[in-house]
Amino acid sequence: MIWTVYLSGEIHTDWREQIAAGAEAAGLPVEFTSANTDHESSDAAGDFLGKPDNNFWRDHQSSKVNAIRTKTLLEQCDLAVIRFGDKYKQWNAAFDAGYCAAMGTPYITLHSDDIVHPLKEVDAAAMAWAQTPEQVVELLKYVTA
Amino acid sequence: MIWTVYLSGEIHTDWREQIAAGAEAAGLPVEFTSANTDHESSDAAGDFLGKPDNNFWRDHQSSKVNAIRTKTLLEQCDLAVIRFGDKYKQWNAAFDAGYCAAMGTPYITLHSDDIVHPLKEVDAAAMAWAQTPEQVVELLKYVTA
Amino acid sequence: MIWTVYLSGEIHTDWREQIAAGAEAAGLPVEFTSANTDHESSDAAGDFLGKPDNNFWRDHQSSKVNAIRTKTLLEQCDLAVIRFGDKYKQWNAAFDAGYCAAMGTPYITLHSDDIVHPLKEVDAAAMAWAQTPEQVVELLKYVTA
Amino acid sequence: MIWTVYLSGEIHTDWREQIAAGAEAAGLPVEFTSANTDHESSDAAGDFLGKPDNNFWRDHQSSKVNAIRTKTLLEQCDLAVIRFGDKYKQWNAAFDAGYCAAMGTPYITLHSDDIVHPLKEVDAAAMAWAQTPEQVVELLKYVTA
Amino acid sequence: MIWTVYLSGEIHTDWREQIAAGAEAAGLPVEFTSANTDHESSDAAGDFLGKPDNNFWRDHQSSKVNAIRTKTLLEQCDLAVIRFGDKYKQWNAAFDAGYCAAMGTPYITLHSDDIVHPLKEVDAAAMAWAQTPEQVVELLKYVTA
Amino acid sequence: MIWTVYLSGEIHTDWREQIAAGAEAAGLPVEFTSANTDHESSDAAGDFLGKPDNNFWRDHQSSKVNAIRTKTLLEQCDLAVIRFGDKYKQWNAAFDAGYCAAMGTPYITLHSDDIVHPLKEVDAAAMAWAQTPEQVVELLKYVTA
Amino acid sequence: MIWTVYLSGEIHTDWREQIAAGAEAAGLPVEFTSANTDHESSDAAGDFLGKPDNNFWRDHQSSKVNAIRTKTLLEQCDLAVIRFGDKYKQWNAAFDAGYCAAMGTPYITLHSDDIVHPLKEVDAAAMAWAQTPEQVVELLKYVTA
Amino acid sequence: MIWTVYLSGEIHTDWREQIAAGAEAAGLPVEFTSANTDHESSDAAGDFLGKPDNNFWRDHQSSKVNAIRTKTLLEQCDLAVIRFGDKYKQWNAAFDAGYCAAMGTPYITLHSDDIVHPLKEVDAAAMAWAQTPEQVVELLKYVTA
Repeated sequence: MIWTVYLSGEIHTDWREQIAAGAEAAGLPVEFTSANTDHESSDAAGDFLGKPDNNFWRDHQSSKVNAIRTKTLLEQCDLAVIRFGDKYKQWNAAFDAGYCAAMGTPYITLHSDDIVHPLKEVDAAAMAWAQTPEQVVELLKYVTA
Repeated sequence: MIWTVYLSGEIHTDWREQIAAGAEAAGLPVEFTSANTDHESSDAAGDFLGKPDNNFWRDHQSSKVNAIRTKTLLEQCDLAVIRFGDKYKQWNAAFDAGYCAAMGTPYITLHSDDIVHPLKEVDAAAMAWAQTPEQVVELLKYVTA
Repeated sequence: MIWTVYLSGEIHTDWREQIAAGAEAAGLPVEFTSANTDHESSDAAGDFLGKPDNNFWRDHQSSKVNAIRTKTLLEQCDLAVIRFGDKYKQWNAAFDAGYCAAMGTPYITLHSDDIVHPLKEVDAAAMAWAQTPEQVVELLKYVTA
Repeated sequence: MIWTVYLSGEIHTDWREQIAAGAEAAGLPVEFTSANTDHESSDAAGDFLGKPDNNFWRDHQSSKVNAIRTKTLLEQCDLAVIRFGDKYKQWNAAFDAGYCAAMGTPYITLHSDDIVHPLKEVDAAAMAWAQTPEQVVELLKYVTA
Repeated sequence: MIWTVYLSGEIHTDWREQIAAGAEAAGLPVEFTSANTDHESSDAAGDFLGKPDNNFWRDHQSSKVNAIRTKTLLEQCDLAVIRFGDKYKQWNAAFDAGYCAAMGTPYITLHSDDIVHPLKEVDAAAMAWAQTPEQVVELLKYVTA
Repeated sequence: MIWTVYLSGEIHTDWREQIAAGAEAAGLPVEFTSANTDHESSDAAGDFLGKPDNNFWRDHQSSKVNAIRTKTLLEQCDLAVIRFGDKYKQWNAAFDAGYCAAMGTPYITLHSDDIVHPLKEVDAAAMAWAQTPEQVVELLKYVTA
Repeated sequence: MIWTVYLSGEIHTDWREQIAAGAEAAGLPVEFTSANTDHESSDAAGDFLGKPDNNFWRDHQSSKVNAIRTKTLLEQCDLAVIRFGDKYKQWNAAFDAGYCAAMGTPYITLHSDDIVHPLKEVDAAAMAWAQTPEQVVELLKYVTA
Repeated sequence: MIWTVYLSGEIHTDWREQIAAGAEAAGLPVEFTSANTDHESSDAAGDFLGKPDNNFWRDHQSSKVNAIRTKTLLEQCDLAVIRFGDKYKQWNAAFDAGYCAAMGTPYITLHSDDIVHPLKEVDAAAMAWAQTPEQVVELLKYVTA
């Protein structure tokens, strides 16, 4: 079995690359999927359909185009890793966690110790909390052994 | 039909009371449900089972006790109102939105104009975006007419 | 058992009233639900949230507000009556029929003989085709006997 | 991942071919499915089982034979493109859109600007509205990148 | 809790009445539902929509009208009793049993000893096999105690 | 796409072989599955676990062993062909039809004209009624084209 | 909202009565359901259908009769309390916990400290672990407040 | 079709190896999956995330890491074999059986005659009861033939 792992959340550090590199080094039977992680092109995802003047509708249109991809990949994954960094709101990451919870798809969180309290509901529905990409790779090793 | 409306999110302003008052004044066939909105008692929800020394596990235990209530009420509502205020992370609100989206339960968001961009994914899956409790009451009037 | 019957489609003739009157005259254990059937107020359903300049987004916003109501009522009905008149596109009626089909909710169609051919896919998934409101009442009598 | 895209609706212009050609030119990992698009043979789909004298039942029989194919392909697709042209009723296209909406399968619409208003409910549940086959190809490029 | 019990199958003996009388005598919290058990009116259930010349389509039309009722009641029951008599094919009874099995609705069978072998698949998915209406009443007493 | 077609029902004529031969001759992308069609070994399916003295329990045990196979294959098929011959009760065939109906899996029936009336409920939920194996092959050609 | 709470497991101590008394004393909006807790009559639940000579089949028959009740009540509860005592195997209690987990129904466990390790998988999928009936009452108070 | 068979329960005898060897010797189209069967490493599954001082939370953390694997494999299997040995509580095996029952996944049990009575509820929802690994292999031969 090849495990499909969806990587959700923060796009400003290289945690995705670290996990992918660790998994590859260990030869794990894992395949990673993700939203478009390029901020600018993600914001402009729907502009080719005609760019609305109004910011709300421009965001709306682009988010729905992005959601075709993210919803499909999220629904097809075996496991999701939800990453919260120390900047920005990252409500989409928490949204993905809730989506997984309702579907019964297992997910783990990846965040530092100082945001344990505001993430308590998200962590409570998670299967594990990791603090480093190395721990995520460790978990993937164990789970796919 | 009595509509059950779950009110999720911010607990530091009286938006819940405003909506309830407006609905009552208009005689709407609506019943509101909600998580425990008292911050302190919510954090201590699981302490009666033995308070863990470790903060992570204390939060974990309390959050799961709270989730018995919130998950049940969320799954039984006909509509959810997800409120984002201008302070705190409010990841649980975004989590609830994702949970609704996956279940196919309609939800609306309630937040000010200045956080439209970080909430774009949450708004994209919502049925409406309101900026004031009055607008939410207006919407309930229309929907339950 | 009280049967909940959703009446979908055409809003320019009084077929809803005829069915309701017939059901009441016969004392049937039936309760009718419906979308907002007032054309103008339906088109303006979302304007109270701020009326978008662009027609597409105004329609979009209003349709989603209307969908909170229609989706909920459609999902709660025991039977839907889908009416196609001789004017307008009425794509929303066909959309409701498809929605019922996918959910496994029984529906019947109500339309005249001259549009049998273009409605063949919609009729094929229906439980019956009626040509008059009287026949619908007859059917409700039989089903709820 | 190979994306399976169901192309529903209008059969009198070559929009399907344009999208397929564009996707092939771009080397997209996409596979297209569709109903039988030959009008005459579609109408006669059930005649080999014995052709009913009555037009309603002939249509009924053929539509159910066609539905074996369309329902199966629609339920297996990752994304549907629902096309509305400027002629005919095309209720089956709207029916397919409703079917997708109820299943939670993402779909986009493809139609010109002048039928935005009658399609508002169908568009409101869609993930995007495109006006040209080129835009659909553009969207497929983005989504499958 | 009031238990809703669907009584499916044979219509030529008074087994339904015996069970109902036994349940009433014992004051059980049970409510019975059933298809139309009048053979002639059941066969003619769709005639008011226009009686097709062809027997297959007449049966088809009537069966679908009947199915609005039976499918709804079957899906709402807590328990089904599937009765096989010593005459006729009674394929609709076996059909109802399969329908229950797929939905996960518990059902019991009611038939004499001499048709144990041809009913083995139907009995294997049942929760119990009773040979007399008295045993069914006994079972209802126990289950609803 | 390879279509998986489950062949259910009568085991005393060679209808399965005829359909398979026709499909192979036409090079159809179809794969057939089926219950164990050997009557004796099917009746003895559970005997290796210890053969119960009582006939009811022997049938029960064997039927459940068979059901591991039939339920799995039935749930995985894209289309089922349900065959009723002119002998025996064949309640398991009607049971399979009901199972398909509840799952939303399309099925067709295969039977002669003289049992149209007792099969009306089973036919009403079917996508087509064929009278000969040749017609089934014809249908498979059309559906998989 | 009246919460329905299913009490599963050990039948040799009065933990059910303690919880019920505590809930009543506190005036909680709670309704309790349960399997038949009388050991002897539970073992004989199916005997009225004819008592099989073989112990396995007698147990089988009785368990399925009991399951009509337990499965229905378990599927209808909002919360389950799964109790493990210090004697007997109590595999049915663990079975009920697994059933709840798969359905997404929240459950809590009630057991003493010395069986934490063998119950770790059952506790891991639970929303809380209580050690005394008083704690369960406390939890019900909080959840239904 | 390759059948995926999940082997759940007892980890202190070589029943898994016996079944696998028998299946291989017979060339069966079967693939086996399983939880981590090494007791010590299973207990320590979550320690790499930081080992909690408290035993309950250490077990909790490890069990949830293990559950990522077991839940995924259990949900993907076509058939589960649930093994109960003569030692230990083996509540996780009964939990897995309940999980299968709720999902509608067929499972069989494997245990000796002397624990028939305490396992009656688990056996009642099973498709078969085997007493030896050889019987399980026999069953796999029959089912996959």
